[in-house]
Amino acid sequence: MKIFNFAAGPAVLPHQVLEQARAELLDWRGTGMSVMEMSHRGKDFMGIAAQAEADLRELMAIPKNYKVLFLQGGAHLQFSMIPLNLLRGKLSADYVNTGIWSKKAISEAKKFCYVNEVASSADQKFNYVPAFESWKLDKEAAYLHYTTNETIGGVEFNWTPNAGDVPLVADMSSNILSRPVDVWKHGLIYAGAQKNIGPAGLTLVIVRDDLIGHADPRLPTMMDYKIHADNDSMYNTPPTYAIYMAGLVFQWLKRKGGIGAMEQTNIAKARLLYGAIDASNGFYQCPVNKADRSRMNVPFTTQDVARDAEFLKQAEASGLMQLKGHKLAGGMRASIYNAMPVAGVQALVDFMGEFAQRKG
Amino acid sequence: MKIFNFAAGPAVLPHQVLEQARAELLDWRGTGMSVMEMSHRGKDFMGIAAQAEADLRELMAIPKNYKVLFLQGGAHLQFSMIPLNLLRGKLSADYVNTGIWSKKAISEAKKFCYVNEVASSADQKFNYVPAFESWKLDKEAAYLHYTTNETIGGVEFNWTPNAGDVPLVADMSSNILSRPVDVWKHGLIYAGAQKNIGPAGLTLVIVRDDLIGHADPRLPTMMDYKIHADNDSMYNTPPTYAIYMAGLVFQWLKRKGGIGAMEQTNIAKARLLYGAIDASNGFYQCPVNKADRSRMNVPFTTQDVARDAEFLKQAEASGLMQLKGHKLAGGMRASIYNAMPVAGVQALVDFMGEFAQRKG
Repeated sequence: MKIFNFAAGPAVLPHQVLEQARAELLDWRGTGMSVMEMSHRGKDFMGIAAQAEADLRELMAIPKNYKVLFLQGGAHLQFSMIPLNLLRGKLSADYVNTGIWSKKAISEAKKFCYVNEVASSADQKFNYVPAFESWKLDKEAAYLHYTTNETIGGVEFNWTPNAGDVPLVADMSSNILSRPVDVWKHGLIYAGAQKNIGPAGLTLVIVRDDLIGHADPRLPTMMDYKIHADNDSMYNTPPTYAIYMAGLVFQWLKRKGGIGAMEQTNIAKARLLYGAIDASNGFYQCPVNKADRSRMNVPFTTQDVARDAEFLKQAEASGLMQLKGHKLAGGMRASIYNAMPVAGVQALVDFMGEFAQRKG
Repeated sequence: MKIFNFAAGPAVLPHQVLEQARAELLDWRGTGMSVMEMSHRGKDFMGIAAQAEADLRELMAIPKNYKVLFLQGGAHLQFSMIPLNLLRGKLSADYVNTGIWSKKAISEAKKFCYVNEVASSADQKFNYVPAFESWKLDKEAAYLHYTTNETIGGVEFNWTPNAGDVPLVADMSSNILSRPVDVWKHGLIYAGAQKNIGPAGLTLVIVRDDLIGHADPRLPTMMDYKIHADNDSMYNTPPTYAIYMAGLVFQWLKRKGGIGAMEQTNIAKARLLYGAIDASNGFYQCPVNKADRSRMNVPFTTQDVARDAEFLKQAEASGLMQLKGHKLAGGMRASIYNAMPVAGVQALVDFMGEFAQRKG
């Protein structure tokens, strides 16, 4: 049975990428070695890493005055590294609270500085993005942090905040590479790899030069962006295989026409799925404000816990896997990242129609 | 041409493990998914991680009062995490200095506490392990740290220090699983995966229960062993594929007869290579004191920089790869970890004989 994997992350990878990885697993281009067996300081792996960075720079149009870092520790480690590197003697930072991932970032930042919550959608269960006009920005803030896509809540920014001279920091873990981004409007962008980049265990950080080099020297060395930037992410052994896999994904994205083309497909997939929800006469409901609905993570329910459970069971039997909503949200969640083909969303929509007919 | 890979890490992996990984890459046991695509909280991956931990516990006879953590950040991040978690209000820690990796651990620890260097082999270019009787131990030290194998210098402990009531902390990055270890004599053991465990991007920490839970709450959350222990290494998304690969290596070790059997093979390989060096009438020389020679990393030279370069070039042409010594050491280094077959060492020894005959 053909299966489609709607996991929120680690998530589905492009089939072509996995096939290439399999073909090269025991012998990368006639070297007689797996990429996993290569010294990170040898010319073969150095070439793989350099190509991955070059392709990412091209895909995202990353300006030259930004460093690209391939790190470890996920968004969670960035939640500390960002204040520890970007406070630069200041005592407070601005954070927008749009859901569970924003809250995690805020909670960790509070260990190191005063957090000014400039806006929050808590008043409506985090089902929308607060209008920029309502944000209570602090011109003296060390930086302004926002979460471009709430993986659990399914709320996504479709615009870029204007932070003026305050560096803008974005957690793009769950929608990076899914749509064009103005990197130049940001001071720092970070993302765990395990949604749109590659396998878990790799963290991408894109940071403007002038924000590097301000960490307290008493910090753990590994927490300092400067150490990683000065050593081209090879201060210590990087997660080599995950970088190789990310490189294959970047090449796949280029073959697909780049991020602009990918965005069109993502728009089509999201329209298909939200369209099915909205046309179900209320059988399926998505709690998110229409203008702020995520193209990547689509939460929905049948308004009945028992019926949701039945939906999940039957969906799995039909090859539609890992649709269970996050434990904090319940119901269903379809994650439809770049690597999810339109056919997967169509299969889900077809199943939803049949299920509603049987149960509606 | 059959090649043998003598890289110091990332290093050669068992051929059977890579073949299994290839066979399962696109479809793990009929799930229709790659392990890379599985949610870390789903039953399939949870099973993979649990099996890996169980196999490791069996292989190393890890007592029940020790937690096994699968982390990220390599030995370098442990260099900070160890003092930050284990000082427990104390102001100083004991460190043995046997070479470059010891020095890195010491240098980082100095950010957080007073380091009492209990012994050092600096007086003889770090070519031996100082006798235990000479160590100036501090009974009030927070812990005693040693590096069981110096990957660059090729110096290995073949005994376990007796630290009394002071917790013993070991960096086993480059010889873990190569010989039996008395885990119960240690407070904490850590190792980067990329030598004897699996691919880079995974860090193993084995820590006794009573040493967990003493970190300052103002520390970055990700630096606290308790967070990882309480969440079975799934506080955040772990490096899932690297854990899967490590699990395959553990299964391979069990099929090979466990660590005792592996040690016998490692002894045989080391005898073969050191035997060739010692029988070369001084053409090849190893700088390390015989009693402290590493079974894992064998540094040697021909006493002539130009001849070393020629050796490396011809060796590579014969399929003997990545033999170049570390830039700080020069010459050659043959890393002969668990996954290096006896045939690889034999091929190297044969080549060494031929080269010496041509040039000697």
